[in-house]
Amino acid sequence: MNRLFHVPLSPFCRKVRLSLAEKKIEVELVEEKYWERGKDFLLRNPAGKVPILKMDGKLLSESGPICEYIEERHPDPALLPSDPEGRYEVRRLVSWFDDKFHNEVTSNLLYERVNKKVMGAGYPESRNIKAGAKAIKFHLDYMGWLLEQRRWLAGNTMTLADFAAAAHLSSLDYISDVDWNRNENVREWYAKIKSRPAFRSILADQIPGFPQPPHYSDLDF
Amino acid sequence: MNRLFHVPLSPFCRKVRLSLAEKKIEVELVEEKYWERGKDFLLRNPAGKVPILKMDGKLLSESGPICEYIEERHPDPALLPSDPEGRYEVRRLVSWFDDKFHNEVTSNLLYERVNKKVMGAGYPESRNIKAGAKAIKFHLDYMGWLLEQRRWLAGNTMTLADFAAAAHLSSLDYISDVDWNRNENVREWYAKIKSRPAFRSILADQIPGFPQPPHYSDLDF
Repeated sequence: MNRLFHVPLSPFCRKVRLSLAEKKIEVELVEEKYWERGKDFLLRNPAGKVPILKMDGKLLSESGPICEYIEERHPDPALLPSDPEGRYEVRRLVSWFDDKFHNEVTSNLLYERVNKKVMGAGYPESRNIKAGAKAIKFHLDYMGWLLEQRRWLAGNTMTLADFAAAAHLSSLDYISDVDWNRNENVREWYAKIKSRPAFRSILADQIPGFPQPPHYSDLDF
Repeated sequence: MNRLFHVPLSPFCRKVRLSLAEKKIEVELVEEKYWERGKDFLLRNPAGKVPILKMDGKLLSESGPICEYIEERHPDPALLPSDPEGRYEVRRLVSWFDDKFHNEVTSNLLYERVNKKVMGAGYPESRNIKAGAKAIKFHLDYMGWLLEQRRWLAGNTMTLADFAAAAHLSSLDYISDVDWNRNENVREWYAKIKSRPAFRSILADQIPGFPQPPHYSDLDF
């Protein structure tokens, strides 16, 4: 049985969960308190991070390489186009969300409000929350601009870029940090992706100490 | 003509330069002071980072996606193996160096000593230098352990993983922050990769205010 060691609100884990679910690859989810860095865990992954996917008898780490591996081993349905230009654009946007959006938004909002509390690492810094709340506006506008020209973020088919973006936004939506009124294109895009069967497990997540807000799993938010 | 907007000591730019050179793709190098964020530059790349590669009439950003694109458009000589497991291992190590090594070592040593001065952003923090100097030992040991089992970092052929690692280490070597006596396997690996024609342009780099140390371009260091 495939097994994913994960943390429910981690956008990197969610991206892998969405890829697996879209491809109908069954996986057992195992929550991993990676910050406690148990010896077993460090044996599974010397980098000390989640996600870790146990698949094909191997332990795989790093969400980007994991998703590329899943895509190569289970190409159907495709989450990467077949032409180099299209593949580049998907990978560029995955990097955009997992690097730039992550540093400017996810770290400042989700990690301040949730991770710090869960890990017992102190109180949120209001300076960081402010920076994150400001930065997310720019990112939602950028997404809205892309979606004016395309049905999905990287082109006219749904790809890993949409899952990377939805992974970050859904985690932030759990703590009500996304203003869905800011951009109509982004709201429509999120409604489409949220209603996919692959999204169900993510909408069912419950974090102790952080009750799920009603709009989070509502398809008509 | 292809054109690469870059900064000489940026490991992300160096990884792209090495890929292009290994594949004998000619490129004009244009130094880009990205921290001054000129308007032209932000039009080229809204993410505000280097490298940016002008190729096939497009402006490409994000070093990971750029290298995958180069690989798909110019597959010969291959810098990724053909099997999914081999490709995964290369990508995992590229992520290892560009994420973990970058955060723990490159940021703490190179950015403290060089980038801060060049950008006029103050003096190096000795706490960060100390942390970087400590972390690089662990990474050199990890590389040495990999190289006990393999001829190159990700397997028995040279790949993008070697270029990612060599990009970081060569930049750190420019400021004499690599102890080549720590691990014989790592020294032999670096001597091999350093002597490739693809490395020549990198060994010729000169940074104003930071004279090149004699061992840096010496193939018998």
